[in-house]
Amino acid sequence: MALHFDRAEFDARRDRLVIEMSERKLDALLLFAQESMYWLTGYDTFGFCFFQCLVVKADGSMVLLTRSADLRQARHTSIIEDIVVWNDRHGANPAADLRNLLNDLDLLGCRIGVEYDTHGLTAKNGMLLDEQLKTFGKTEDASDLVARLRLLKSPAEIEKVRRAASLADDALDAALPLIKQGGDEAAILAAMQGAVLAGGGDYPANEFIIGSGPDALLCRYKAGRRKLSKNDQLTLEWAGVYHHYHAAMMRTVLTGKVSRRHQELYEAARDALMAVEKAMVPGNTFGDVFDAHARVMEARGLTRHRLNACGYSLGARFSPSWMDQPMFYSGNPEAIAPHMTLFAHMIIMDSDSGSAMTLGRTYLTTESAPEPLSRHELDLIIR
Amino acid sequence: MALHFDRAEFDARRDRLVIEMSERKLDALLLFAQESMYWLTGYDTFGFCFFQCLVVKADGSMVLLTRSADLRQARHTSIIEDIVVWNDRHGANPAADLRNLLNDLDLLGCRIGVEYDTHGLTAKNGMLLDEQLKTFGKTEDASDLVARLRLLKSPAEIEKVRRAASLADDALDAALPLIKQGGDEAAILAAMQGAVLAGGGDYPANEFIIGSGPDALLCRYKAGRRKLSKNDQLTLEWAGVYHHYHAAMMRTVLTGKVSRRHQELYEAARDALMAVEKAMVPGNTFGDVFDAHARVMEARGLTRHRLNACGYSLGARFSPSWMDQPMFYSGNPEAIAPHMTLFAHMIIMDSDSGSAMTLGRTYLTTESAPEPLSRHELDLIIR
Repeated sequence: MALHFDRAEFDARRDRLVIEMSERKLDALLLFAQESMYWLTGYDTFGFCFFQCLVVKADGSMVLLTRSADLRQARHTSIIEDIVVWNDRHGANPAADLRNLLNDLDLLGCRIGVEYDTHGLTAKNGMLLDEQLKTFGKTEDASDLVARLRLLKSPAEIEKVRRAASLADDALDAALPLIKQGGDEAAILAAMQGAVLAGGGDYPANEFIIGSGPDALLCRYKAGRRKLSKNDQLTLEWAGVYHHYHAAMMRTVLTGKVSRRHQELYEAARDALMAVEKAMVPGNTFGDVFDAHARVMEARGLTRHRLNACGYSLGARFSPSWMDQPMFYSGNPEAIAPHMTLFAHMIIMDSDSGSAMTLGRTYLTTESAPEPLSRHELDLIIR
Repeated sequence: MALHFDRAEFDARRDRLVIEMSERKLDALLLFAQESMYWLTGYDTFGFCFFQCLVVKADGSMVLLTRSADLRQARHTSIIEDIVVWNDRHGANPAADLRNLLNDLDLLGCRIGVEYDTHGLTAKNGMLLDEQLKTFGKTEDASDLVARLRLLKSPAEIEKVRRAASLADDALDAALPLIKQGGDEAAILAAMQGAVLAGGGDYPANEFIIGSGPDALLCRYKAGRRKLSKNDQLTLEWAGVYHHYHAAMMRTVLTGKVSRRHQELYEAARDALMAVEKAMVPGNTFGDVFDAHARVMEARGLTRHRLNACGYSLGARFSPSWMDQPMFYSGNPEAIAPHMTLFAHMIIMDSDSGSAMTLGRTYLTTESAPEPLSRHELDLIIR
């Protein structure tokens, strides 16, 4: 068994879920998000790339439907006791297997919540599911149910995030000596990811972002590596990950001589992040945090160079992305509360001058000011 | 620009697609699979974690709908010229933006193919899409269209796969010195992934699998690392990845003294793989390859310890999984043809004795016998 939380923690989570389900009058919940299954049971796999469902009844009892390759995985990593396997074969329809399972669980005609808003259920599988369930019971979208419970972190979870943040700091330390004229992006990436994995951490739910020269203006991973030139810019976005809990950081590191434009953009990014920190307090919304960032950008004439979001919640996430909901974007009414782990990234990409600047770190919200979860200073790094 | 293929290669792919669309009488195709976008245009991102669509018209013209964070990514990595951005905001419905775009493209009332069977379109987004399109045109599932074109690899793609296979071999070489009593799974994983990344390769579309002791019987990644004991078993499944093309390998490496059961299971795995190689020829189906493996397992009384699939196609894949279609499972009628890159994995997990044994490598199919794409021998590795 590789359970990363006490049984009491899982019991408490299940109890919170059962209360929520009762308030929504749900007889059962069909979990398809791997994040939900991991949170509720510890079940840890990338088997969600195929059809897989954890059925939770109103009394908190659970049955997992999955493929043979994940049978032992569920037994070794989770508290799930009942597991049903559907078999790969030509013309297999696992949604029909799920309907049969729901029937065996006496759920015919019942009210059933479904997680539709997850990469654990593709549009195709969603259609197969709806076809089976339309005459079986009353279904409704319950994608937000576990997601909202996951948003507030327990003390045990916060410990994981602190470990993750420490690994993120280690990754930056591993990268810095390699960032110089002639330095190879491939070596830098290997060193950063290596620091996290060698430290007992996990793969990130999306690739680390690394890009230099013109590609420093990108904020996604891509194939192909480059060597750094004398006066260069290197944008890095990465996360330490521990037991799947993420703590992300973002930096644009410069080599050689700093241009006036880079200096301006750095100051804007730093001021925006300071404004975001001030706004990241209970009483404000996620939209307020975005607005605090947008105001600084506007005051400096940088609106057209910023993105339409400046961060998001982090937690135990699975691929293809570590970006959790809610996000810092315009008008998001979700309230900031204590015990959230939030990543704020200031990203300024000036296509006119070809200059990139980014600055970001992960915070733990409290009753008042948020606590940054990184030991690194925010100074502009020049190598 | 970071284009990994010649313009002529992309032109040839587009021409093949246009012919297929014409045969199916499709006026447009909505691509949601990142694999399809990468194949057709080079577009390289994990931005498919949000709503994103590449519209291809019958004449081969294309427009990408994506978020602001991916605007430059598309420009830097692909041949796509027309890009429309949808904005994050409270209550945003990007499917409505897509409908407007299709309207601007004069596709009202037309016949539109949709990729529903992909992690690039969640069930939730699929529902939003169908709601917008039900009164707009005639939609049909075209998930298999680009997927089938991707299955046969061009000479330029095969070069990428050979580079990937070489990185996979490097990863095993990096791991072997660390596999011994007291060796740390974390260090082994860091060394293997580090070899691929430092060699200019990419992240795999799913995590490398590493598990020892009782967890050697698992065939998925999970968090949490262990140190090897004196007489131990370590199951590894990994891939070299180059420009997103995967070449996977699988091994169970033993430390110390080899049990009789391990020896028996190894011989079965090797004989099954040899039988699979014989079956992996034009004229046979993917189902025939599975049957060849299953017959060896049955003859040795191991049917209950094998999986229900023994491999699959590989190519340029994005998270959450490098497993492509078609797979080697019972009854799969898909025909083996030359120029496929196929991963065959023999997996025997004997829960009774607690013994694991795996053996797998990637092949290039030819007019006759498949070519193994690894320089490593198949001998049982004991450290």
